[in-house]
Amino acid sequence: MPFLEALAGKALSTPPIWLMRQAGRYLPEYREVRAKAGSFLDLCYSPELAAEVTLQPIRRFGFDAAIVFSDILVVPHALGQHVEFLEGEGPKLKPVASGKDLAKLSGKDASKRFDLVYEAIGRIVPELGGQTPLIGFCGAPWTVASYMVGGGGSPDQRAAKLLAYRDPATFKALLDLLVETSSDYLIGQIKAGVRALQIFDSWAGSLADDDFGAFSIEPTAEIVRRVKSACPGIPIIGFPRGSSASFERYAMETGVDALGCDTAAPLDAMAALQSRLPVQGNLDPLLLLAGGDAMDRRVKAILSRLSPKPFVFNLGHGILPETPIENVERLMRLVRAVD
Amino acid sequence: MPFLEALAGKALSTPPIWLMRQAGRYLPEYREVRAKAGSFLDLCYSPELAAEVTLQPIRRFGFDAAIVFSDILVVPHALGQHVEFLEGEGPKLKPVASGKDLAKLSGKDASKRFDLVYEAIGRIVPELGGQTPLIGFCGAPWTVASYMVGGGGSPDQRAAKLLAYRDPATFKALLDLLVETSSDYLIGQIKAGVRALQIFDSWAGSLADDDFGAFSIEPTAEIVRRVKSACPGIPIIGFPRGSSASFERYAMETGVDALGCDTAAPLDAMAALQSRLPVQGNLDPLLLLAGGDAMDRRVKAILSRLSPKPFVFNLGHGILPETPIENVERLMRLVRAVD
Repeated sequence: MPFLEALAGKALSTPPIWLMRQAGRYLPEYREVRAKAGSFLDLCYSPELAAEVTLQPIRRFGFDAAIVFSDILVVPHALGQHVEFLEGEGPKLKPVASGKDLAKLSGKDASKRFDLVYEAIGRIVPELGGQTPLIGFCGAPWTVASYMVGGGGSPDQRAAKLLAYRDPATFKALLDLLVETSSDYLIGQIKAGVRALQIFDSWAGSLADDDFGAFSIEPTAEIVRRVKSACPGIPIIGFPRGSSASFERYAMETGVDALGCDTAAPLDAMAALQSRLPVQGNLDPLLLLAGGDAMDRRVKAILSRLSPKPFVFNLGHGILPETPIENVERLMRLVRAVD
Repeated sequence: MPFLEALAGKALSTPPIWLMRQAGRYLPEYREVRAKAGSFLDLCYSPELAAEVTLQPIRRFGFDAAIVFSDILVVPHALGQHVEFLEGEGPKLKPVASGKDLAKLSGKDASKRFDLVYEAIGRIVPELGGQTPLIGFCGAPWTVASYMVGGGGSPDQRAAKLLAYRDPATFKALLDLLVETSSDYLIGQIKAGVRALQIFDSWAGSLADDDFGAFSIEPTAEIVRRVKSACPGIPIIGFPRGSSASFERYAMETGVDALGCDTAAPLDAMAALQSRLPVQGNLDPLLLLAGGDAMDRRVKAILSRLSPKPFVFNLGHGILPETPIENVERLMRLVRAVD
């Protein structure tokens, strides 16, 4: 399986490819299932429907890896936080603003939610037929905490940072709870059948270097230690989006096996990292949306710079809902060197 | 004047300090003037009031540099684009979506607007009394173009990127127009009395490396060439926010004299750059808002790491309107080593 070979450090003449959010709204077959599913969380917690949408992009495009259809906010939801996804508005959570709010959360019933994800994994793996590995994932504690404290997304993660600065003990306790719950959740996903993991730290890029160490690297490193101790040999991709000036530090200190690279990561920096570990990324999702010559040129530049060493082709961020399917088809032909 | 000495490459025992957006809503005396001024653009174009708010933070805190009160969107406005600032909503522009829209813009009447900024500069300089230099500025072409094409701010600069990918000739013509107009505007500010310049590329951080070269570095380098050719010796600070993985490339290829560093720029990377050019930054504005021990610790870490070499203390982004004035006072005591 080329994806697992690349993560193990092998350079392949044709690099493996998958796309972040490859199961999603740009696919008509996804929108059809989504319309039947009730809420977005209902879809995440329906093993049958989650399995179906996970498989759709594999059937259509033949990507080299599938990724469990779920959301990073399943973890706070499983901890008892109120989470909802409003159509066109993004997630809304009841904010964890204090130690008192935090004390109301508990991991004791978390496995009830997680079991539904494990059940989806159990349905997906046999359908993939041994040729395509399945990726499990969670959000990194910093990114998940930023939603939990802020009550949703925010451009500067203001609420989470202010809690961290004003009440460091409470913020640390929140990160610790997320480390513990996320580690158990990832181990559960492995036991259910995933063959690799990705830890999404989507908001790492707003952190100063000392906060990046304390809020992003340290909790991620602890998750990596716990997962590797329970399940040695499972490859873990870290994705600290927006932190390319600190990629080497992140890779060394977290112990991840491969580095997911955002759009702004310079190809030279990614190539330099490849002597240390495989890299994954970093096509701009807006280039995939735009298509045409601009996309062709950039895809070829990425391939010629990174493909000679261990590399997984991917976007620098999730695929956009407006992306034309023919652009994804064109991308597959370019990466597979069919044209 | 410590600020100009630092920009000339001198290490000072007490580094100079100023804050991005230091004339702004966190100051009660600013809010008072703002309330009298009509619209935000009316304030920018009133030489008397713009001069007054420029001077307010110097009087109150004794910063080592003043910066002309204005906005980067004065340039598209001067080119004839419709620009308005809606209270609490950010700027709204009539989008430049095509070559036809672009053809309607012209620099021929731009000097009418710019003259009002130059007149403000002419009022500010004598009031500063020769002890405090005045900084002039403009937005970098990429960042200004992202507002012009998008009709306002956006998290991913989608409209500007799509125009650049789909109609590269029109996008290049827009950048060229901005290079020409911005260069003239900066030269006009120097002639009116500013002693240093800053070029704000607030949205540089979303660009892949090839786009960063073509959209951020090349136009900025051309502005630097034109300004230096007309006014040799004027120090120029470049501020490519979010691009710390490419700071060295940016510094070498643009020819700026000093580098403004955002919050995510690692102190190690900033310190390494100091052997090449002075750096400025990078306290998290949310730490200045929060204050307390967390702010004290970080300010001391920044000073001990960067102050031994050429350094200008600043934030990593603009000061937030909710910032308590006593936190700014505390910051001044820490940087001036009065406590």
